[in-house]
Amino acid sequence: MSKYTIGVDYGSLSGRAVLVETSTGKEIASAVYEYPHAVMDKTLPDGTPLGHDWALQHPQDYIDVLAKTIPEILKKSGVNPADVIGIGTDFTACTVLPVKKDGTPLCFLDEYKSNPHAYVKLWKHHAAQDKANKLNEIAEKRGEAWLKNYGGKISSEWAIPKIWQVLDEAPEIYNAMDRWIEAADWIIWQLTGVETRNSCTAGYKAIWNKKTGYPSKEFFKALDPRLENVVEEKLGTVIVPLGDKAGELTEEMAKLTGLKAGTPVAVGNVDAHVCVPAVGIDGPGKMLAIMGTSTCHIMMGTEEHQVPGMCGVVEDGVMPGYFGYEAGQSCVGDHFAWFVENCCPASYFEDAKAKGMNIHKYLREKAQKLKVGQSGLVALDWWNGNRSVLVDVDLTGMILGMTLQTTPEEIYRALIEATAFGTRMIIENYREHGVPVEEFFASGGISQKDPLMMQIYSDVLNMPIKIAGSEQGPALGSAIFASVAAGKAAGGYDDVFEAARVMGNVKDVVYTPIPENVKVYDKLFAEYRKLHDYFGRGANDVMKRLKEIKKSI
Amino acid sequence: MSKYTIGVDYGSLSGRAVLVETSTGKEIASAVYEYPHAVMDKTLPDGTPLGHDWALQHPQDYIDVLAKTIPEILKKSGVNPADVIGIGTDFTACTVLPVKKDGTPLCFLDEYKSNPHAYVKLWKHHAAQDKANKLNEIAEKRGEAWLKNYGGKISSEWAIPKIWQVLDEAPEIYNAMDRWIEAADWIIWQLTGVETRNSCTAGYKAIWNKKTGYPSKEFFKALDPRLENVVEEKLGTVIVPLGDKAGELTEEMAKLTGLKAGTPVAVGNVDAHVCVPAVGIDGPGKMLAIMGTSTCHIMMGTEEHQVPGMCGVVEDGVMPGYFGYEAGQSCVGDHFAWFVENCCPASYFEDAKAKGMNIHKYLREKAQKLKVGQSGLVALDWWNGNRSVLVDVDLTGMILGMTLQTTPEEIYRALIEATAFGTRMIIENYREHGVPVEEFFASGGISQKDPLMMQIYSDVLNMPIKIAGSEQGPALGSAIFASVAAGKAAGGYDDVFEAARVMGNVKDVVYTPIPENVKVYDKLFAEYRKLHDYFGRGANDVMKRLKEIKKSI
Repeated sequence: MSKYTIGVDYGSLSGRAVLVETSTGKEIASAVYEYPHAVMDKTLPDGTPLGHDWALQHPQDYIDVLAKTIPEILKKSGVNPADVIGIGTDFTACTVLPVKKDGTPLCFLDEYKSNPHAYVKLWKHHAAQDKANKLNEIAEKRGEAWLKNYGGKISSEWAIPKIWQVLDEAPEIYNAMDRWIEAADWIIWQLTGVETRNSCTAGYKAIWNKKTGYPSKEFFKALDPRLENVVEEKLGTVIVPLGDKAGELTEEMAKLTGLKAGTPVAVGNVDAHVCVPAVGIDGPGKMLAIMGTSTCHIMMGTEEHQVPGMCGVVEDGVMPGYFGYEAGQSCVGDHFAWFVENCCPASYFEDAKAKGMNIHKYLREKAQKLKVGQSGLVALDWWNGNRSVLVDVDLTGMILGMTLQTTPEEIYRALIEATAFGTRMIIENYREHGVPVEEFFASGGISQKDPLMMQIYSDVLNMPIKIAGSEQGPALGSAIFASVAAGKAAGGYDDVFEAARVMGNVKDVVYTPIPENVKVYDKLFAEYRKLHDYFGRGANDVMKRLKEIKKSI
Repeated sequence: MSKYTIGVDYGSLSGRAVLVETSTGKEIASAVYEYPHAVMDKTLPDGTPLGHDWALQHPQDYIDVLAKTIPEILKKSGVNPADVIGIGTDFTACTVLPVKKDGTPLCFLDEYKSNPHAYVKLWKHHAAQDKANKLNEIAEKRGEAWLKNYGGKISSEWAIPKIWQVLDEAPEIYNAMDRWIEAADWIIWQLTGVETRNSCTAGYKAIWNKKTGYPSKEFFKALDPRLENVVEEKLGTVIVPLGDKAGELTEEMAKLTGLKAGTPVAVGNVDAHVCVPAVGIDGPGKMLAIMGTSTCHIMMGTEEHQVPGMCGVVEDGVMPGYFGYEAGQSCVGDHFAWFVENCCPASYFEDAKAKGMNIHKYLREKAQKLKVGQSGLVALDWWNGNRSVLVDVDLTGMILGMTLQTTPEEIYRALIEATAFGTRMIIENYREHGVPVEEFFASGGISQKDPLMMQIYSDVLNMPIKIAGSEQGPALGSAIFASVAAGKAAGGYDDVFEAARVMGNVKDVVYTPIPENVKVYDKLFAEYRKLHDYFGRGANDVMKRLKEIKKSI
C-alpha cells in the first residue's frame, strides 16, 4: 500500500500543496491558492498608508492556503488521509512577524490591526536599510567574528534590521510582541501547536551559529540599549536542525485540512534551500542553482570556510550534519524581462507575432544561431547590483563591444552569458577559498524552459548541468522532509539523504560542455573577470559615483 | 545692381547648385541632381563585379550635375548670367580618379571601361586598407616627420594608398594614367580647361606640406620601387591655395551651363572645410563642427602644432594664411539610427505613431525631460571606432550604469552625451597641445533640427554654440570662395575673410551653457575621460581582444 506526504510551498503571491508518493517521489496531485491580500505595499486592508519600500503580508492568507489546497489535493487524488504520513512546508525568508506567547499575530488583535508594524514583513520589505547599514558599521567596528560568515554584510531583508525598525518606529508593537518569528516557523506552530525555530532561517537570517549561538548582548546593546536582551525576550533560543520532526498535526488543523490528527510535521524550511533534496542531492560539493527572476546557489560543504562575498554559511542550514553555503545573483530572469521591455525593437515583436512566437523564444532562436564570441560583446550582469562575491547593491550594469552592426539578439545573448559568467565567478570564488564545487544542478523556471541558456551555462562553467525533474522543486523538497519527519517505520525515511536519493529526481537530459565553446568562453570569461575586478573592487568606482550624482539631482 | 555667385556642392549621392547674392549671402535659388550611377559598390555599369569594400563613381555624373542644375537655378531665379560673377565648387574627398594628360578620365576610353580601376575611387572606397597599413608601418620605421601632422596615421581613404592599390592590382591603369587627381580638382579642370591642385586636398589627403612638399622619393621607393617618381609622374606639384582663382569658364562649359564664358572659377575645395566661411568664421580659434551621420571638426590656428590624434594640420588648408586643423568623430547620427533600429522598444514606436511623431523626435522629447545625471549612465561613443584623439578603428562602444529601472530615453540621451564628451575630448586635446579653441559653431543636419543635442553640447563644452544660418553650408561656402575668385572690382571680394563676414551667417538663436548642467557634466566628463583613457590607451585592450576573438570564429 502506497504512502504519501504533502509538501506546501509558500511563495510571494500564493501557496501550493503537492501530494507525493514516498516510495517514488511521484507527484500525485497539486493545488494552488493565491493570497487574497497578496503583497501589501501601498496600504493596509483598512486603508492605512505604508511607507516607501514597504512590503507586508497577512498571516490569515497562510492559514487559508492550508484550508483550501490540502482538501483539494486529497479530493483530486482520492488518497485516504490515513495514508498521508507527513506534512512539510517551506517559505520565503526572511518573512517575519510579531506574535503573542500563544502564537497569535499582533495584527489579529483589534488594537493593533491598523498598525503596519503588526503585520508580516515580507522578505522584500526594504524599509530597514538604514538599520542594516548601522548594524554593519557597528559590527565591523567591533570586529564581530560572525560577520565574515555572511560575506561581510548583513542584509536589510533579515530579521535583526527588521525588528530594529519595529523597535524604532513602533515601540508599542515591540513591547507587545512576545515573539519575533519567521513565517516558516509560525506556520509550523499553527500546524502542531508547538513553537520551533529551524536551523536554516535562524542561521541565514537571524545571525545564529550552531557553535557560538546568537551575537552577544553587548553587540545588541551597542545597536540600541533596548535590544540588549532581544534574543531571550523575542527570539527563540532552541534551534532545531532541518530534517527533524517539529510535532504532530493538531485536532483543529486536522479538521481544517481533512488530514488525520497526529500526522507528523517537519520543522520549517526555506523555499530555495528545500529544493536541494528535490534534485536528489545527498552530500557536499553539489551546487544547486534555483534560477528565476534572480538566482540562488545552494551547496553543502564538510567544513566551515569564511568565503568572502557569499550570502552565508550555516551548519545544518541545508541538510543536517553539513555546512550549507548560500550565494546569489540579483538579476537573472529580470535581466531578460528588462531587455524585452526596454530594448527589443518593434520589428522583432512584429516578426514574432507573425510567427505566433513568444518574444523570448523568438530572441532565443535568433541568439542560438550565433557562434560563441561572434558578437564581440561582453557584459557585467549588475543591473540589480551584485549579491555575491562583491556584495554591493550600488554596482550597475555594463555592456561593451557594440558596433553599428550589433544586433538585438547579440545583446540578448551577451546578457545571458553575463549571468553565466557571474555564476562562474561564484564557483571560482568558492574554489579559491577551499570549498569544492564538483557538480552543478539547475532548478526553477529558467532551467525548465530555456535550453539555450542551460547550454551556455554548461559551456561557460565547463561542467555538465543536470536539470530538476520537478517543476515544483520547493513543494517536492518539503514533501521529502515530511517523509523524514514520518520515519521509515511509517513508510517514510529515517534520514533526508536516503529520502533525497529515492524521492528527488533530475531529467534524463543533461547539458554537457561543448569543447570548442568552452575554449572561447574561457577567453571571454577572462575579460569578464578583468572588468568585474576593475569596476567591482575599487580601481574605478565610476558606478558608485554615477549613483551618487543621480541621488544628488 | 545685385551680383551673384554660384556654389556647387558635390556630395556622395547628388550634386547641388545654389545661387547666392554676393552683397548679402542670401540664397536665391537652388537645384539638386542625383547621380545616375550613384555609388557603384557591387558592379560596374557593364556588370563587371567589384571587390569587397569597393566604392566607385562615374565622372560623367559630375559633368551632368553642372548641365542640369545651373540652367535650372538661372531659370528659377531669372538672374541674368552676366550678373553671375563667379562659380565655386566643393567635393567629397579623398575622391580621386586616373586621367589622361588632357583630363580625360580613363573610364571614358573604350579600352578601359570594363576596368574598375579606371573609375573614380569614392572617399569611402576602403579596399586599400592593407596598403595604408604597410604605408604607416614603413613611415613609422623610417621616422617620417610628416606622419605626426596626421595624428600618426594615414587613412586607407587617402590618395597614396589608393594609387598604390591601382599600381598593385592594375599596373596597366597606373601606366596609362598621366594624372591621379582629386575629383575636386578635376571638375575645376573641366570648367576652366586648366589643371590646378588645391592646397586643402593636397595637404589633407595627399601628404603635401606647404614648407616641405610631398614625402621624399626614398619614402615612395620604400613603398614600391615603381612609386619612386609618383609625384612628378602622376601628381601635380603646383599647389594653389584656397581662395585663389583657378581660371575662367570655357566656351564649351558656358554652353553647357548657360553661364557666360570667362566667368571666374575658384580653385577646388572640400565639402567640410568649405563650410567654415559659410558660418562667418574669419580667423583662428573658432571651431566648426559639421554634424551628420559623423562629425567633422574644422578650425584654424596661427601655428603648426603636431597634435596627437587629429586627422591633419595643413597650411592654407581652410583659408589662406592659416593652419587648418581637422578632427572627426566616426559615429554621431549613425549612433541614433542604430539605436532606433536595434534598441527602441515596440511600445515607443506605437506611442509615437499614435501621436503622429517621428520616432527620433519622440525619443528626444522624452530625453529632454531628464535632468543631467539623472540616468546614472555614461557611454563611450565608439560604435564605429575612434577617429580622433585615439585614432583607432578597433575600439568599440560601451555603456555603463544600467539598472532594472533604466529606460530607452535614458540610453538614447546617454548616446547623445557620449558624442558630446567625444567632442570635448577633441577640444581639450587641442588645448593641451597649444591650439586654442575659443568659439564653437555647428552646421550640418543635426545642428538644424536637434535643439536638445545642441543644448547638451553647449552644457558639456561649457561654450556657447552658434548654429549655421544656412542648411546648404557647403554650397554657400563655395559661393563665398567664388565671390573671392571674382574679386571686389567685379562685385565680389578681395579676400575670403571679408567675404565670410558678409556672406556667411549664423542663426539668431545661440545655445548657451546652463551653469547647473555644466557643473554636473564636468563630473560626468571626468568619468568619460577616465573610461576613455582606460579602454583607449592600452590599460585594458578588451575591445581589441574581443574583435580578435570575433575574427577568429
